[in-house]
Amino acid sequence: MAQTSAPLDSPGTAVRVEPATIEDLPALIDLVAELMDLQGDFTPDHQAHDRGIRLILEEPSRGRIFVLRNDERIIGMVNLLFTISTALGGFVVLMEDVVIHPDHRKQGYGTLILEHVIDFAQQKKFKRITLLTDKLGAASQEFFKQHGFEFSHLIPMRRLLE
Amino acid sequence: MAQTSAPLDSPGTAVRVEPATIEDLPALIDLVAELMDLQGDFTPDHQAHDRGIRLILEEPSRGRIFVLRNDERIIGMVNLLFTISTALGGFVVLMEDVVIHPDHRKQGYGTLILEHVIDFAQQKKFKRITLLTDKLGAASQEFFKQHGFEFSHLIPMRRLLE
Repeated sequence: MAQTSAPLDSPGTAVRVEPATIEDLPALIDLVAELMDLQGDFTPDHQAHDRGIRLILEEPSRGRIFVLRNDERIIGMVNLLFTISTALGGFVVLMEDVVIHPDHRKQGYGTLILEHVIDFAQQKKFKRITLLTDKLGAASQEFFKQHGFEFSHLIPMRRLLE
Repeated sequence: MAQTSAPLDSPGTAVRVEPATIEDLPALIDLVAELMDLQGDFTPDHQAHDRGIRLILEEPSRGRIFVLRNDERIIGMVNLLFTISTALGGFVVLMEDVVIHPDHRKQGYGTLILEHVIDFAQQKKFKRITLLTDKLGAASQEFFKQHGFEFSHLIPMRRLLE
């Protein structure tokens, strides 16, 4: 029987958010590479993404990757890195690699995965979630604002090391 | 014999950068509290700073705090947190709490501690150092630019959790 993607993709049927496992690695690498393609600061590098994602999956104290999947495939991901705030006095989350596959956008999946992240962080007593958003992505900034995120007056500076 | 602070403070004599230990905790808390006082985003909270700094000192895999000290006291600090970049495929450093005590500024100590950080990160094969600078601190931005740091086009958004 032929399947259409619409019923499978509807929130509430088969779409769910789960912790990623090592079997998800190829799909995660593709999603991160696609995100890099969209951002001016980075270029896709499948080998690098493979190494980075493995480092997180191998050691849950470093962070957690959640995937959004239907019965057929992974359609989104988010990468949570755990670190410490001396200002707040506890563990905090850096949220990176928030990606929904282009075929599955505008269907509420961003909200589904972000609400999962916020629940997870609250349950685990993290004190803050920070993400770095692209200045150009006004729609994406609006999305995060709707979910309680506020702009900081701080700006990032970076030095790459050889 | 009475001592003046000038000779002790001169780089090359008794001033050195060393990993912080638990004995340094009270001085570190004071320096972080002072930094919070200067930044609009945060308010000083000695108990919180105590908890956060302990979390780092207790588990070296999470990060490293270096102190700048002379024979009498701690005159500066920097807090390096270790996390992972899926973009670059390896460990990266978040540099926070870069503070020189007000009595000891404009004497080259910022450079001393920052060069130590860059050497440390290169030796340990970290792939990038990121810091969040205050938009208002033009002098401090110029300082980091002189040391190879560049502005990113990304901007931070944050959500505090209760």
